[in-house]
Amino acid sequence: MAPTADADAMRRAIELAARGLGSTSPNPVVGCVITDASGTVVGEGFHQRAGGPHAEVHALADAGERARGGTAYVTLEPCNHTGRTGPCAQALIEAGITRVHYAVGDPNPQATGGADTLRAAGIHVEQGLLGAEAEAGNAAWLTSVRLGRPHVTWKYAATLDGRTAAEDGTSRWITSADSRADVHRLRAECDAVVVGSGTVRTDDPHLAVRGVEGATQPLRLAVDTNATAVKPGARILDDAAPTLIAVAEDADAGHLPEAAVLRVPRAATGLDIPALLAALHTRGVRSVLLEGGPTLAGAFVAAGAVDRVVGYLAPALLGAGPAALAGAGIPTIADALRLDLTEAVRIGPDLRITATPLAKES
Amino acid sequence: MAPTADADAMRRAIELAARGLGSTSPNPVVGCVITDASGTVVGEGFHQRAGGPHAEVHALADAGERARGGTAYVTLEPCNHTGRTGPCAQALIEAGITRVHYAVGDPNPQATGGADTLRAAGIHVEQGLLGAEAEAGNAAWLTSVRLGRPHVTWKYAATLDGRTAAEDGTSRWITSADSRADVHRLRAECDAVVVGSGTVRTDDPHLAVRGVEGATQPLRLAVDTNATAVKPGARILDDAAPTLIAVAEDADAGHLPEAAVLRVPRAATGLDIPALLAALHTRGVRSVLLEGGPTLAGAFVAAGAVDRVVGYLAPALLGAGPAALAGAGIPTIADALRLDLTEAVRIGPDLRITATPLAKES
Repeated sequence: MAPTADADAMRRAIELAARGLGSTSPNPVVGCVITDASGTVVGEGFHQRAGGPHAEVHALADAGERARGGTAYVTLEPCNHTGRTGPCAQALIEAGITRVHYAVGDPNPQATGGADTLRAAGIHVEQGLLGAEAEAGNAAWLTSVRLGRPHVTWKYAATLDGRTAAEDGTSRWITSADSRADVHRLRAECDAVVVGSGTVRTDDPHLAVRGVEGATQPLRLAVDTNATAVKPGARILDDAAPTLIAVAEDADAGHLPEAAVLRVPRAATGLDIPALLAALHTRGVRSVLLEGGPTLAGAFVAAGAVDRVVGYLAPALLGAGPAALAGAGIPTIADALRLDLTEAVRIGPDLRITATPLAKES
Repeated sequence: MAPTADADAMRRAIELAARGLGSTSPNPVVGCVITDASGTVVGEGFHQRAGGPHAEVHALADAGERARGGTAYVTLEPCNHTGRTGPCAQALIEAGITRVHYAVGDPNPQATGGADTLRAAGIHVEQGLLGAEAEAGNAAWLTSVRLGRPHVTWKYAATLDGRTAAEDGTSRWITSADSRADVHRLRAECDAVVVGSGTVRTDDPHLAVRGVEGATQPLRLAVDTNATAVKPGARILDDAAPTLIAVAEDADAGHLPEAAVLRVPRAATGLDIPALLAALHTRGVRSVLLEGGPTLAGAFVAAGAVDRVVGYLAPALLGAGPAALAGAGIPTIADALRLDLTEAVRIGPDLRITATPLAKES
């Protein structure tokens, strides 16, 4: 098979993997393409849900006998352990696969070793094909494994002059219906959606995913340090999706449903963000969509806990009103959080910008 | 000639016209392509400087005898009047051109009528080919003819969270060297560069064009209502380019060079922006690059005097510091100045956004 065809197959596997975003947690997203001995694609699959079959198993089932003598393209190193499903390395061996390309090594110590098992069975194994693309597609899960906390995407919507509302507080709507629909897609790809007490007070947000077919509802989390913002009857407390209210250990939260209360230590201002994220990680949350407001976003930035920024920029000017980010603990230009702009695309009349923090120079 | 070939020739004429940006004022930019009877391009030209030959004259000289029986593609209706150069309509007739395509009609009552003259001479004349593109290329001049004031481009540089400086006032550098070089190109395309007193006090800016080959230095204008910001020895007062300091009619400007002082009526706050623009128009300024700061930009927005917005967005977060725009007189979201995003391109690590105000719905 020509190198281009190898890349095409892996690219398809990465596309397939992305279909699992939002429903595989705490597992990674994984895609798999099987070609037969002549290089024809005979099987495709992706990991759909935690507890369900892995991508390789789906793809092998799709390929059937045609997998024998063929090649498997997998976005992540095939697993070696017997969890809720059997080890994929073994399944590939039994199916008669003779060549395996995987894009990214498995950083999970429980699952690693699949490549060695394959090689020991005489299979030709290569790592790294489209590694960067596959890694980007699994950024949330890889971050969570490496850092022991969920991957955090901070989403904001603002005018070109950086305002998230007008001087009188009105903000409906800064961005277009297209952008707002796109936010629901972002929510559906994450395990939890997080807002602060200011947003709860101003907007009484619902935070559930609407308009995304087959979406798994993410956990809704309100950071309400003093337990004063979320009132009984708040929309976030309905049964459309699970909900947690993060409050300080000493807060009086008697008015909130006990099962929804998450106690977190205080920081100098608000809650201790690393402790909050650790608590979410313990509960299986691997990716968080932080939807503001400015104070909470500032606390996350100050804690070094923003892994991706998604900004919806409306082509509009206001000249007054709140900014998207405040209190990030950055006093001077040399300390600015510098990002790498990875994407800028139009969403209706708006512009969606995606950026990731640059590694700090030491 | 096939319609595609017609469009190709006009597109080339629009490209040629753009080379004159910044040096033709108070004239428009104009480009011209001549093809011979077989459709082969035999001449090209553009209007290079006010007082110099028009585009058609350059292109006809380039084509020589090969123009006979050919077609002229001109971005603007050929002029009919004898100004500092002879009428272009007559020149095209004498050269034996048999067909003329022009993109945009001349709105200048002194120059219009060229098309009629050509038709009377038996030449086949058509208007409108790539009209929108040609109009965009001449936006500054067309705006100035239609509105009787210079076309205003507001340029700003900010972080993704809309800050133009850090909390401590440091702003060097928000954007990259690539973006800053691009600003010099913008300056070179305009007749005047405008800053406010805050910028003068903070930055002591020089405002001359650097690093753009063959650039005509634009007029440097500081809006210094009370004549308290520009001090003797300010960099803006050197001889690198002409300079005006706009002050209120009652301001004490004895410390400023008399020839540089422009007296303008006061408004409720600062100077009367329409009066300022009218004064510039009288002096032949057809396009202005407004480089801030926020207060002056707000006054221009409030006066409805921003025709184009060019934003350099640095992929960085600050969380504190001044915004790009203030005091624009917009209290609520329904009154936001809505724009049409016409371009978003990368400049080095940054993103350059260009937008123009949408026509107000009545």
